[in-house]
Amino acid sequence: MTIAATLPATKLTPDALVHQLEWRSATKQFDPARKIDAQTWKSLAEALVLTPSSYGLQPYKFIVVNDPALRAKLRPASWGQAQIEEASHLVVFAIKKSMGEAHIARYVDRIAEVRGVSTESLEGYKGMMVGSLVNSPKAARIDEWSARQTYIALGNFMTAAAMLGVDTCPLEGIDPAQYDAILGLEAEGYATVCACAAGYRSSEDKYATLTKVRFPESELIQVR
Amino acid sequence: MTIAATLPATKLTPDALVHQLEWRSATKQFDPARKIDAQTWKSLAEALVLTPSSYGLQPYKFIVVNDPALRAKLRPASWGQAQIEEASHLVVFAIKKSMGEAHIARYVDRIAEVRGVSTESLEGYKGMMVGSLVNSPKAARIDEWSARQTYIALGNFMTAAAMLGVDTCPLEGIDPAQYDAILGLEAEGYATVCACAAGYRSSEDKYATLTKVRFPESELIQVR
Repeated sequence: MTIAATLPATKLTPDALVHQLEWRSATKQFDPARKIDAQTWKSLAEALVLTPSSYGLQPYKFIVVNDPALRAKLRPASWGQAQIEEASHLVVFAIKKSMGEAHIARYVDRIAEVRGVSTESLEGYKGMMVGSLVNSPKAARIDEWSARQTYIALGNFMTAAAMLGVDTCPLEGIDPAQYDAILGLEAEGYATVCACAAGYRSSEDKYATLTKVRFPESELIQVR
Repeated sequence: MTIAATLPATKLTPDALVHQLEWRSATKQFDPARKIDAQTWKSLAEALVLTPSSYGLQPYKFIVVNDPALRAKLRPASWGQAQIEEASHLVVFAIKKSMGEAHIARYVDRIAEVRGVSTESLEGYKGMMVGSLVNSPKAARIDEWSARQTYIALGNFMTAAAMLGVDTCPLEGIDPAQYDAILGLEAEGYATVCACAAGYRSSEDKYATLTKVRFPESELIQVR
C-alpha cells in the first residue's frame, strides 16, 4: 500500500488546471529578490524525483545550481541569458551517458530494496530491460532515449511548478559541453541536455503579458 | 493582456501537488466502463495545446483515437497491451517530420494572426529560428529535436491528468511504423513517437498499489 492510497484526494478542478497552464509563461525576466520558499522547493524537488520514466529506469540526474559563482560561469555558456543568474533556482537536466547493464542492475537492486523482494525474483524483469535496451538496436541510440525521458521530467517540472504558481523558463539554448565541464559531469558519466530556471516573474517582464500563440486546437488535435 | 492575467489565482498547495504525483501510477489495467467526462477531457485537450515547446514551434500533432475499430487495430501494434482498448482515451503523439521553413512560416503567420502584428515585423524572429534549426547542424537531427518537444507534451499531459485524478499510462512499447500506417500519418508528414492511454484505474489493478521505486533523492538531485 502506498502512502498516496491512504491519503484523501486533493485534486484540482479542470478549470483551475487550465487557468494555471494559461498563466504559465516562459519567463524571460525573473525577480531576483524573490526566492522560492523551502516548502515549495521541497515539493518541486519531489516532483522531479517522481517523474515517470520508461521501465522506471530514471536514466538521468538533476543538478540544482545554487552557488552564485557557478551560475555566473554558466551564464556565458547560455547565450548570456539573465535567467541563469536571476532566477531563484536553476535546474540542469543531465542524462546518464550510455545507460547500460550496470545502471539497470542498480535499478533492480533498488526495486528489491524498496519493495522488500529478492533480486533473484526480478531476474526476468531485468533480462527484459537488458534485452530491450542493451542487446537491441536501441543501444545505438540509447543517449537519445535517455534524453527523451529527461524531457518528460522537464515537462513534468514546468507543469508542477505552474500548479504552485511558480514561474519557469526552459533553456535549450545552452552549450551542453560547457555545462558538463563547468559542473564536472563528464567524470561522473552524465551529460547535460537542457536546463530550467524557476522562480517568480518580474513585474517588468513584458513577455509575460503577451497572448500565448498556439495553432488552433483543430489542427493540433485530430480526433479519429 | 492574456485571459490568465485577469483571473484570480487557483493554485495547488505544495502538499497537494506531491500527493497527486504520488497517487499517479502507470496504469496497467483501466476500468473499461469508466469514461473521462466531457469537461475534464476538454481541459486535458487544452493542456496538450498549451504545452510549452522550443520557440513555441509545436512541431507535433496529437491524435485522439476514439474509434473502437481503430483501437483494435492499434493493439497488436502495441505488444497487445490492453490499455489500448480499455482506457477511456488514447492519445498518439506524432512529430511533424523534417520540420523546416514551411512549418516555421506557418507558425510566424499564426503569431501575426493571434497578436495582431504584421508578418514583416516578425522577419527577424523567423530568420533566427530558421538559422538555428534549418540552416544549422541541428537540421540533421531535427526529427529527434521534435521528438524531445513531444516528450515535454507527454510529461505535461501525465502531470496535468494526475492533477485532475485522471489515470494515464505512457506507451513507448509500440510500433511507430505500424501506427503511422494505421492512422495514415505518413501522407500528412507526421510520424508516431509514443502514445498515452488515459482513464481510470480498475480496482483490480494490482500494480497501482505497489510502492513507487525511485533512486534516493540524494542520488537523483545534486545541489551545487
